[in-house]
Amino acid sequence: MPFVHRLRVRFHECDPQGVVFNAHYFSYFDVALTELWRAAFGSYANVVQDGTDVVVVEAGATFRAPARFDDEIDVELAITRLGTTSMTTATAVRRDGELLVEGRIAHVFVDAVTLAKKEIPERVRAGLEPYATA
Amino acid sequence: MPFVHRLRVRFHECDPQGVVFNAHYFSYFDVALTELWRAAFGSYANVVQDGTDVVVVEAGATFRAPARFDDEIDVELAITRLGTTSMTTATAVRRDGELLVEGRIAHVFVDAVTLAKKEIPERVRAGLEPYATA
Amino acid sequence: MPFVHRLRVRFHECDPQGVVFNAHYFSYFDVALTELWRAAFGSYANVVQDGTDVVVVEAGATFRAPARFDDEIDVELAITRLGTTSMTTATAVRRDGELLVEGRIAHVFVDAVTLAKKEIPERVRAGLEPYATA
Amino acid sequence: MPFVHRLRVRFHECDPQGVVFNAHYFSYFDVALTELWRAAFGSYANVVQDGTDVVVVEAGATFRAPARFDDEIDVELAITRLGTTSMTTATAVRRDGELLVEGRIAHVFVDAVTLAKKEIPERVRAGLEPYATA
Repeated sequence: MPFVHRLRVRFHECDPQGVVFNAHYFSYFDVALTELWRAAFGSYANVVQDGTDVVVVEAGATFRAPARFDDEIDVELAITRLGTTSMTTATAVRRDGELLVEGRIAHVFVDAVTLAKKEIPERVRAGLEPYATA
Repeated sequence: MPFVHRLRVRFHECDPQGVVFNAHYFSYFDVALTELWRAAFGSYANVVQDGTDVVVVEAGATFRAPARFDDEIDVELAITRLGTTSMTTATAVRRDGELLVEGRIAHVFVDAVTLAKKEIPERVRAGLEPYATA
Repeated sequence: MPFVHRLRVRFHECDPQGVVFNAHYFSYFDVALTELWRAAFGSYANVVQDGTDVVVVEAGATFRAPARFDDEIDVELAITRLGTTSMTTATAVRRDGELLVEGRIAHVFVDAVTLAKKEIPERVRAGLEPYATA
Repeated sequence: MPFVHRLRVRFHECDPQGVVFNAHYFSYFDVALTELWRAAFGSYANVVQDGTDVVVVEAGATFRAPARFDDEIDVELAITRLGTTSMTTATAVRRDGELLVEGRIAHVFVDAVTLAKKEIPERVRAGLEPYATA
């Protein structure tokens, strides 16, 4: 089941070509993930309690068509892999259904102090499962 | 004696009007101040050692002419007031000498843990004095 | 009558001190103004039709308390001066009513091509008047 | 022959985890590419003259270790494919030689007005060839 977060493109996120600068889509992925955390756990703070944190280890995107200032866009997230210590999320950005950007982002769960890899806590896994595909 | 830091305008700092978005000038002030810290102390890390930190309490700017992508601009800083717990810095952004933006930024020194106001440490004051006007 | 736009602080807008970096508040002012344009005119595109555009000539803020990641904040705008070619807007950022930041931003209306100052078009003035104080 | 651009991590590019936020690395790639344009052509303006422009169609990165505020990092670029209408660039970010981030970015050359794909102009190809691998 994909999670969808709608947001509005901000003026300063667009560059002199008049379109959203490529790097900002990775911020949009993060903003949408924050909302997925909220839907699943109440907040990111609840994800990272008990000394757990989460870091991005990989990110990528294919840009098919540009979003522009004041566009309302839907950022879709689907967890395509929920591993022992990591998760991979497929992302899509649409405007009125039209696919603009497809991406993927991989996170690893770590100990908040040592940053060593750590198993996804059971309560976190349970909260994420509804957003996992297959 | 003003401190000058030269930097190059980045593409993504410019908006669909083709000019640097107003908020980014405040980032430029911060980037230049980081270089002033380096000139005065070796690094920001040296400023904030011993449990001292510094926070921005006021910032303002007047925009006279726009900077554009790939422009080299000079960010000038002059400490106009070095108080007991705070400092005020006048900023100017120039391109080939032409004044583009004039600003000001006020910082307060605080305890890094409690964030309570704190006297500027003597070693910090000594390092900043060469950049203070009058 | 102040205009209020609520937004959520994004993770990447916060710095290593754990608080919103000062420059981003100026982006928030712009985001809220875009929503005021929408309420008054349907969109910014409608403001700047007929060869009119608007540029920021002054901006400032006083930072009283920090906003943090995931905070919901209200950005309030009140047009304090609606001149012949320019407007000044008072801004306030609150969290649960608590005043975090107070600011001001001055815009000038210009010819979209020459960027020369231009009288505020009558339809624009009419749309803005409900948000003007006094 | 890889092209290398050194830059300094800015405070506001770091997030509450104290490290560079992932999206900013894609901006760093763009900043370095601007410098490659400069080395090859004098400026980006010279690349996109004659009605040519360039757009990003794909970007990705693997994050191995974090960069932090005030770090000096080297952004390396090597053009791994110089096609008829597109180019692919491998990127690496290092600090004191240590590999922090590996990435790739694909650009397509387009007509600046219609945005239709367009052959890389001969003068552009000639300028880029010294930075192409194999």
